[in-house]
Amino acid sequence: MTAVSPLAPTSYPTLPPIAGVHFASAEAGIKHAGRTDVLLATFDKGTTAAGVFTRSKCPSAPVDWCREALQSGKARALMVNAGNANAFTGKRGRETVKLSAAMVAEALGCRPKEVFLASTGVIGEPLDAAKFDRVVERLVAHQHDGPWIDAARAIMTTDTFPKVATRTAWIGDAAVAINGVAKGAGMIAPDMATMLSFIFTDAPIAAPVLQSLLSRGVTGSFNAITVDSDTSTSDTVLIFATGQVAGAKPITLTRDRRLAGFREALDDLLLDLAHQVVRDGEGARKFVEVRVERATSKRSAKRIALSIANSPLVKTALAGEDANWGRIVMAVGKAGEPADRDKLAIWFGDTRVAFHGERDPDYSEAVAAAYMKSQDIVITVDIGLGTGSDRVWTCDLTKEYVAINGDYRS
Amino acid sequence: MTAVSPLAPTSYPTLPPIAGVHFASAEAGIKHAGRTDVLLATFDKGTTAAGVFTRSKCPSAPVDWCREALQSGKARALMVNAGNANAFTGKRGRETVKLSAAMVAEALGCRPKEVFLASTGVIGEPLDAAKFDRVVERLVAHQHDGPWIDAARAIMTTDTFPKVATRTAWIGDAAVAINGVAKGAGMIAPDMATMLSFIFTDAPIAAPVLQSLLSRGVTGSFNAITVDSDTSTSDTVLIFATGQVAGAKPITLTRDRRLAGFREALDDLLLDLAHQVVRDGEGARKFVEVRVERATSKRSAKRIALSIANSPLVKTALAGEDANWGRIVMAVGKAGEPADRDKLAIWFGDTRVAFHGERDPDYSEAVAAAYMKSQDIVITVDIGLGTGSDRVWTCDLTKEYVAINGDYRS
Repeated sequence: MTAVSPLAPTSYPTLPPIAGVHFASAEAGIKHAGRTDVLLATFDKGTTAAGVFTRSKCPSAPVDWCREALQSGKARALMVNAGNANAFTGKRGRETVKLSAAMVAEALGCRPKEVFLASTGVIGEPLDAAKFDRVVERLVAHQHDGPWIDAARAIMTTDTFPKVATRTAWIGDAAVAINGVAKGAGMIAPDMATMLSFIFTDAPIAAPVLQSLLSRGVTGSFNAITVDSDTSTSDTVLIFATGQVAGAKPITLTRDRRLAGFREALDDLLLDLAHQVVRDGEGARKFVEVRVERATSKRSAKRIALSIANSPLVKTALAGEDANWGRIVMAVGKAGEPADRDKLAIWFGDTRVAFHGERDPDYSEAVAAAYMKSQDIVITVDIGLGTGSDRVWTCDLTKEYVAINGDYRS
Repeated sequence: MTAVSPLAPTSYPTLPPIAGVHFASAEAGIKHAGRTDVLLATFDKGTTAAGVFTRSKCPSAPVDWCREALQSGKARALMVNAGNANAFTGKRGRETVKLSAAMVAEALGCRPKEVFLASTGVIGEPLDAAKFDRVVERLVAHQHDGPWIDAARAIMTTDTFPKVATRTAWIGDAAVAINGVAKGAGMIAPDMATMLSFIFTDAPIAAPVLQSLLSRGVTGSFNAITVDSDTSTSDTVLIFATGQVAGAKPITLTRDRRLAGFREALDDLLLDLAHQVVRDGEGARKFVEVRVERATSKRSAKRIALSIANSPLVKTALAGEDANWGRIVMAVGKAGEPADRDKLAIWFGDTRVAFHGERDPDYSEAVAAAYMKSQDIVITVDIGLGTGSDRVWTCDLTKEYVAINGDYRS
């Protein structure tokens, strides 16, 4: 169960320092001893923030806190813990976030609402703020500019590998850096899963613009992945922009043309991190892209794609390396979106297996079967009714998923 | 994989003959040799019919056929095969149903549209009507009034036990019999799954009334079960009423008061059969009832209940006998229905584990853990917002489910 996912990247990029961002991690013993489980990142004055959160009707206490904290658009710190989600912890949970933010604020000399919090792990267990008390001072005293892989490791729970990504973008003549870390392996579905991701940049971007970039950016990345269709109470993506890059004037309008390159780089980084989350899907052996084309709308295409990606019968067939396109038909049919059986076409990779509502007469089971042994699989469905297309990513459903989740709490 | 489900009933009821219903089964070698795979039931003249079908946008050819055939409300025969669903088989699939119905009609001397058809098994493989040609004459020549268990066996696919149920109801002074058979083990979700069920009665009920009874009856039974959230292209429930019971005048109006007892008996029989389908859920070890109370509406309660019942994380926790109520909170939160975290209460059996948005202070992990070892589990969630309640039934998600479905086609 602790073996690294076979879909893990073979190497990790080295992330550059981000001017104005510092961090440290510590062992607070929140759930297990002997592992780092708290990350404290601090930001120089002038840092802006934006965030996107779970759509769960039962969000965690830190999610509630961050939503409020974002109203000012200013950030001085981010504290993340693994091992306990501080979700469904009632009044005590609210006390814990308040106390934790106050501790960090006092140590840094900022306002509590400039401290962002995220927690991941077990739901329903009270999280004792005293655990942070023991480590906050030391964390503040030992802030570094790297290595970033340590930050990614500190937020892991059932993850089998740390998730990092970096991009460079030009804002006018200034090269800005964007670093990101993420965690997540199960309870992964739009929108968004026990999935935390934190993005840091030295770009000078006002909070409302940052919010717009992030909200759009997650649509095709973190909101287009599913491991098991289960959505967490704690999903959080936060972006922090220190504005410390030299030579770029602040961007205060979404329509600023200098944003084009940054937007592209950010979207690419978000997709990279989202794919890493799927590649660490609990028990995953296959990384699967589901493309739906020519649906009646992009929204309809995404719903059909998610119906396929979330189907246990499709996912178990993928685990069994079975080119079982009948189950794709089933999943298209159950999506509830416009579809005409007799216009459907389905591909596994480049092999068209079904066409015009029946098995493709030229389809070779041997070729399809060979393709299904690949680690990365692309399923394409042509609905044949319109011009809406979209893509989502998922993994297969294996016995290991059941094993990992059948005994998670103990 | 072929072992009988541990949740199977320990004995089967003996079903009485139904006046006007005769049947026989045969080995047509549709997929496997050496097992009965075709059932032909025939009905005396005057038999009425009603049906409910999958809501899949990609229904099978037999489903299309039955929908048309139902327009007259008259039935003389029902032919069911296992091993091939005749779904996503295009024009050839439509030819097959036409030819099959014509064969039976010719042998019986009725119209083809009085012959109902249902197929279950692999999707996308052409079904050769010639396979029926070899057995239809013999089937017609050897019609019996029982034993009904043979009819249930003939329609099994991955089922590990035959599913039968019987009830008696009074219509005025006449005792009418209702017999039912069902099949289904995977791809089971509202509405309705690769699930076939056929109900037979000697009650004298006009087709429109029968349709009303059946449509309402499936809501709380076949449309309230889920094994894996996957909905088949072939789901079919048909009811046939011969009207041959002595001493009861025909019922032609839904508001006929004589229907009360029949409705109750039919609903009870449908629920019995639906539960048997869940008890044969692929890989199932636990039979789980999910009750949602005090939601804002009955519809909302059902959606929340299905969100819980379909959650892979809830289902794997059940398999692991883990009283993981945090995952129940997660599933309530992701349902998208009105919910207030701080008003939720959750029970496993009689043990209240969560109350007012946090862990119940009096909750004993030991008591809850002991309860989770039961074969039949009841999960109750009080939303605390309204008066809407509903129930659904499901099973756990085990490694055996993955094993069964990872290699189904071969």
